[in-house]
Amino acid sequence: MDNNADKKNLTESHIEQFKKICGEQNVITNEEELNDYAHDQTESLHFLPGVVLKVRSAEEISEVLKICNQDKIPVTPRGAGTGLSGGALPDLGGVLISTERMNSILEIDEQNLQVITEPGVITEVLQDSVKERGLFYPPDPASRGSCFIGGNISENSGGPKAVKYGVVKDYVLNLEVVLPTGEIMWTGANVLKNSTGYNLTQLIVGSEGTLAIVTKIVLRLIPNPKFDLLMLVPFKDVSKASEAVSAIFRAGYTPSALELMEIDALKIVSDFVGSSPVPVTDETVAHLIVEVDGNHLDTLMLEMEAISEVLMQYDCGEIYFADDNAQKNELWKLRRRVAEAVKMDGYTIEEDTVVPRYQLPALIQGVKKLGVEYGFKSVCYGHAGDGNLHIRIKKEGTANSQDDPEIIKSLRALFMLVKDLGGTVSGEHGIGLVQKSFMDIVFTEKQIDLMRGIKKVFDPNNILNAGKIFD
Amino acid sequence: MDNNADKKNLTESHIEQFKKICGEQNVITNEEELNDYAHDQTESLHFLPGVVLKVRSAEEISEVLKICNQDKIPVTPRGAGTGLSGGALPDLGGVLISTERMNSILEIDEQNLQVITEPGVITEVLQDSVKERGLFYPPDPASRGSCFIGGNISENSGGPKAVKYGVVKDYVLNLEVVLPTGEIMWTGANVLKNSTGYNLTQLIVGSEGTLAIVTKIVLRLIPNPKFDLLMLVPFKDVSKASEAVSAIFRAGYTPSALELMEIDALKIVSDFVGSSPVPVTDETVAHLIVEVDGNHLDTLMLEMEAISEVLMQYDCGEIYFADDNAQKNELWKLRRRVAEAVKMDGYTIEEDTVVPRYQLPALIQGVKKLGVEYGFKSVCYGHAGDGNLHIRIKKEGTANSQDDPEIIKSLRALFMLVKDLGGTVSGEHGIGLVQKSFMDIVFTEKQIDLMRGIKKVFDPNNILNAGKIFD
Repeated sequence: MDNNADKKNLTESHIEQFKKICGEQNVITNEEELNDYAHDQTESLHFLPGVVLKVRSAEEISEVLKICNQDKIPVTPRGAGTGLSGGALPDLGGVLISTERMNSILEIDEQNLQVITEPGVITEVLQDSVKERGLFYPPDPASRGSCFIGGNISENSGGPKAVKYGVVKDYVLNLEVVLPTGEIMWTGANVLKNSTGYNLTQLIVGSEGTLAIVTKIVLRLIPNPKFDLLMLVPFKDVSKASEAVSAIFRAGYTPSALELMEIDALKIVSDFVGSSPVPVTDETVAHLIVEVDGNHLDTLMLEMEAISEVLMQYDCGEIYFADDNAQKNELWKLRRRVAEAVKMDGYTIEEDTVVPRYQLPALIQGVKKLGVEYGFKSVCYGHAGDGNLHIRIKKEGTANSQDDPEIIKSLRALFMLVKDLGGTVSGEHGIGLVQKSFMDIVFTEKQIDLMRGIKKVFDPNNILNAGKIFD
Repeated sequence: MDNNADKKNLTESHIEQFKKICGEQNVITNEEELNDYAHDQTESLHFLPGVVLKVRSAEEISEVLKICNQDKIPVTPRGAGTGLSGGALPDLGGVLISTERMNSILEIDEQNLQVITEPGVITEVLQDSVKERGLFYPPDPASRGSCFIGGNISENSGGPKAVKYGVVKDYVLNLEVVLPTGEIMWTGANVLKNSTGYNLTQLIVGSEGTLAIVTKIVLRLIPNPKFDLLMLVPFKDVSKASEAVSAIFRAGYTPSALELMEIDALKIVSDFVGSSPVPVTDETVAHLIVEVDGNHLDTLMLEMEAISEVLMQYDCGEIYFADDNAQKNELWKLRRRVAEAVKMDGYTIEEDTVVPRYQLPALIQGVKKLGVEYGFKSVCYGHAGDGNLHIRIKKEGTANSQDDPEIIKSLRALFMLVKDLGGTVSGEHGIGLVQKSFMDIVFTEKQIDLMRGIKKVFDPNNILNAGKIFD
């Protein structure tokens, strides 16, 4: 597909039109402020947009997109800019549409256990709001305190609860979107089951803002579980730890979180946040974090006990049970901030590998072997229960994986390994800009062509987030 | 989109080629046998295919599709023919591809809790096979004893367990498909989380065999819950019964089944199967069937008690608890066979309405009002917990809803009501042939155009199940 969009098409006359549509104060053109929208959490990438529009409604977006579509101006939709694959970066310049002002929770429907929200609501704010009504929206990426729910839809985010409760796609019932050609439409209906035509809702979820801009989101909610229990389990052998993960499910238990953290990651984040709630023995190489939740505390205690017995068969060390909410929060803080901490420690971007759960030991062993071969250090952590392992690498003398052919070579080898193990490139971060050069590892040209064809159906002039996911 | 396919394109020379590909005994051309493939469970529709091919592999399908694509011969894929919307009917003649011989469960992967299966496996056989290993595949349409898992994928089937466990789409991880142009490809990876490109897997699920023919299916499994409890709850007021449905969830409980059955349906099916396990008082107008499941019997007892208390606030009658497996099976038999029974009693095809759960009372009241207005009797039953209500109507002197303009008019009024209540045309049966004339009620022309565009990307010559879902 030709990239028809061209940043040079953006003129002063367009800016004037946008001011009329969005209000003068919501059209940003000065470089200092534009700089705030030039990066996300994907390493050191920096692309200045031509203009930023802080839109307030689907109607405004529609008017803007009609102009951009007609004049072939590239458009980048953006949430909070917490993405890890560059999906919200305006690498072609042009118009950046920020949803930050579309930040209202429109309705918490307690009768139907649904919430209707705008895309610019912070995920944690949404979660807290429904929790006040006894309701639960489970998907919670590590960045939930700052990311927007709209961005979560675009990337099909997951987080630690996904192992029991599923990812974003499992909660989205219906979306109001604006098509690149300007039409405003809903993708489905606010119902729990739907076999009426192609599933446009699921097609938009995870499409990284390349098919449409999401302006309203209908999510199903579930009753909030009353209790949870948390434990931290040390292992001397990371393979044993990841074998134990699979064994827990085979024994018939589904934890509400099942995370793995290598000891280097734990040490770095403990230093970073100035807290180390657990004594760590010298021989510990990794921990599992295991949480169960439900409405009956007695049952949860029994489940924790049974899971502990499984874990002990895999040579775990002394299990640390979080006694109260303070201890639980302390542990979760470590897990949530590990990405930030290891990044500060010089590790490159977070790879988002995902394999069938039982292949975790092979994946971790493979990563270490590649480290020897290509001369990098690695830390692994992530959602072991889902087989979704985040891997960061560090190589002396290279700050940025994007610019280093050696690192790119080693990442390619990593993704080949992931593919060989039955896995794929991204479990919850998306492809965006930075992973698209690895798409050929997991997809044939025919598969990519189908995606390109779908893109063209939605966006004939290729103006919306062009060049993300695939060229 | 023009329908380029033409049944007249099928020649003797094609039949000879198909015999070489599939083996002579697997190419059916005699009218008596063709008749077996001319209908499904959708009323009295009857369309004879030009030829039936009992294929055995993706490779055979690929060769057949290449020929049909080149010569623009219509192709209809077919599972067990238990569909309720005509999706597997060869209304354009041409080639019917039956997956009945592709009936192997290829691998039950106990390490990763996944099963890989061919499409022609009977759903109940699949469920029983994984259950033997302590694993659970929840989606179970009423026809599970005869329907194929491949058909379930095509229609995104649900069933009673969906209220807690979700529908087919929530279990499909990856699909091997043959495109109408003959390419064989996988849609994703065998992983629990996937944000790598557009979700082609979810696009195929529920696409009713119009985009590709599914040849291998990877499903995730969960640990089999050890216990379940079941109760039957009578109500004097159907609105109260359906209000109670919503209240159960608001009270914090998620039953593993929550079904509603109007008394007429119960009486008809009791007569039909020659069993009435529960005494029915004269004032009863509907029952709820409530099931909970889990690993701890004590907890389930507590939950049943708590749910009973909620139900009593909605004026239920005396609750009947199923004491043992025999009683549970008896009750489930009634529920599962109700469709068959009311059909024999002269009711027309099963409408598959779905609304937000709390709108159930309004939907049922509306149906009865329409019955007065249009002069039909109705029975309602279905998956109340999901807001998915099956409605069958009976009008003296009309046997077939397809041919009766008055019935079509009343169905249109019904779907307008469903739309007004925030619902849609099909929750789990699909659109196929018989519901497509109602698509304009819930979709705009633009939405249908997007679907047509997607269809064209997959099937440029419009050979595969052309004219299903939309014209």
